Amino acid sequence: MRLRLDLSYDGTAFRGWAVQPGLRTVQGEIETALATILRIEHPPPLTCAGRTDAGVHARGQVAHVDLDDVDPPTLERRLRRLLPDDIGLRSLSIAPDGFDARFAALERRYVYRLCDSPAGPDPLVRGTVVGWRRPLDVEAMNAAAAHLLGEHDFAAFCKRREGATTIRTLLELTAVRSGDLIETTVRADAFCHSMVRALMGALVAVGEGRFEPAWSGRVLATAARDARVTVMPAHGLVLEQVTYPDDDGLAARAVAARRRRDA
Amino acid sequence: MRLRLDLSYDGTAFRGWAVQPGLRTVQGEIETALATILRIEHPPPLTCAGRTDAGVHARGQVAHVDLDDVDPPTLERRLRRLLPDDIGLRSLSIAPDGFDARFAALERRYVYRLCDSPAGPDPLVRGTVVGWRRPLDVEAMNAAAAHLLGEHDFAAFCKRREGATTIRTLLELTAVRSGDLIETTVRADAFCHSMVRALMGALVAVGEGRFEPAWSGRVLATAARDARVTVMPAHGLVLEQVTYPDDDGLAARAVAARRRRDA
Repeated sequence: MRLRLDLSYDGTAFRGWAVQPGLRTVQGEIETALATILRIEHPPPLTCAGRTDAGVHARGQVAHVDLDDVDPPTLERRLRRLLPDDIGLRSLSIAPDGFDARFAALERRYVYRLCDSPAGPDPLVRGTVVGWRRPLDVEAMNAAAAHLLGEHDFAAFCKRREGATTIRTLLELTAVRSGDLIETTVRADAFCHSMVRALMGALVAVGEGRFEPAWSGRVLATAARDARVTVMPAHGLVLEQVTYPDDDGLAARAVAARRRRDA
Repeated sequence: MRLRLDLSYDGTAFRGWAVQPGLRTVQGEIETALATILRIEHPPPLTCAGRTDAGVHARGQVAHVDLDDVDPPTLERRLRRLLPDDIGLRSLSIAPDGFDARFAALERRYVYRLCDSPAGPDPLVRGTVVGWRRPLDVEAMNAAAAHLLGEHDFAAFCKRREGATTIRTLLELTAVRSGDLIETTVRADAFCHSMVRALMGALVAVGEGRFEPAWSGRVLATAARDARVTVMPAHGLVLEQVTYPDDDGLAARAVAARRRRDA
């Protein structure tokens, strides 16, 4: 039986999503809780939609795990009791046929939050909002963003990984100011490692006036990591939502996968 | 010269506003920073609009301090650099004639935040939202609130203090649900010690169904501390705003005060 977990977490005290020996990670905490509840030493691994880096938060992370002989409402209740208070299990349910938290996801939506008040960010939200000393021109940021939309090789904004493609489709990159808070929504089919924070680095460089908006397009065109593109701090970033096909779409996906397997 | 400070703080790591020897308090941190900047051992004390308890937050705290020979913009900049990151100095300015952060305040507005989702509060806001396991009936909470509005002796909801009046005018007490978040706005001319959290305790008791709404009015009428009224946890409470007369009103206040003194 495949279970879908909808998760929310405060990334501050985690070394990211993915299990790493000896480090506190979101995946590690959940798998440990599962092992305790199910009284097994090695629970099957969780698969997630977006492997968030150290310090990155999530309000809409989705994961799946394959388990037999469990009652989902009971497991949900027991997990909620056992998980630390920086991980919230929003829901645990039986996944529809064809569901895969990672490979069935159509798009991921992140929001990056900045505050350019000279007073710094409101202390009550300082864990999720990055303070920026220089004023940011949101119009210039959006002009820079326009050069990046669509399907491109985003190698300029990605950590190089041998053999992995860096071609992605950027569906949305929009900065909106309310007072001194600047919320930038970033939506794509998928992201490479540190890509959202590198895109934000480019937008901030333009927003500060260090480069004109068209510079972002020139960086993109080089398709090579550019030292002038800063990777912005992790704590401003929240994985807000992952979108999947509806149940019919997932079922069609399952049928197609079985056909490929049988062919 | 009287200076007005507009402050925001995360109350988590403070033992409240007021200076207490050996304890970390908001007033203590600001006075220590002032002493460092002004190179004096004992800076004049700060006076604030609402002496928040340990763990209570503020987004709109107002304080004043009387200092001579300072340049406000310079002092603002130096304070911002020196204050810890759980205190935000939103602004520092010369106070208008007749201003007193405590005695000139017309009303204080607090918001108390609860979440009654079985999943608990979103981990990203768990520092300012109190999780409640049982579902809350917001309509019943508002019906209970209606019995408390207006000028009353709020002794039933106050910690007793020898000689101090517990008569207050409650101007607003309204709970609003959005999803599983319940935000209750509490507005009064002033509050006694722990009064907001005791009012919330009464509303939650009714919201859970432990008492019918009219019970809150009967508790009020006893004018004696009632053990069935719980003081709710501090971390759900934020002092959001303090309202003062406009400059003309403050000036008239100053004239009246001088007349009383001269009479």
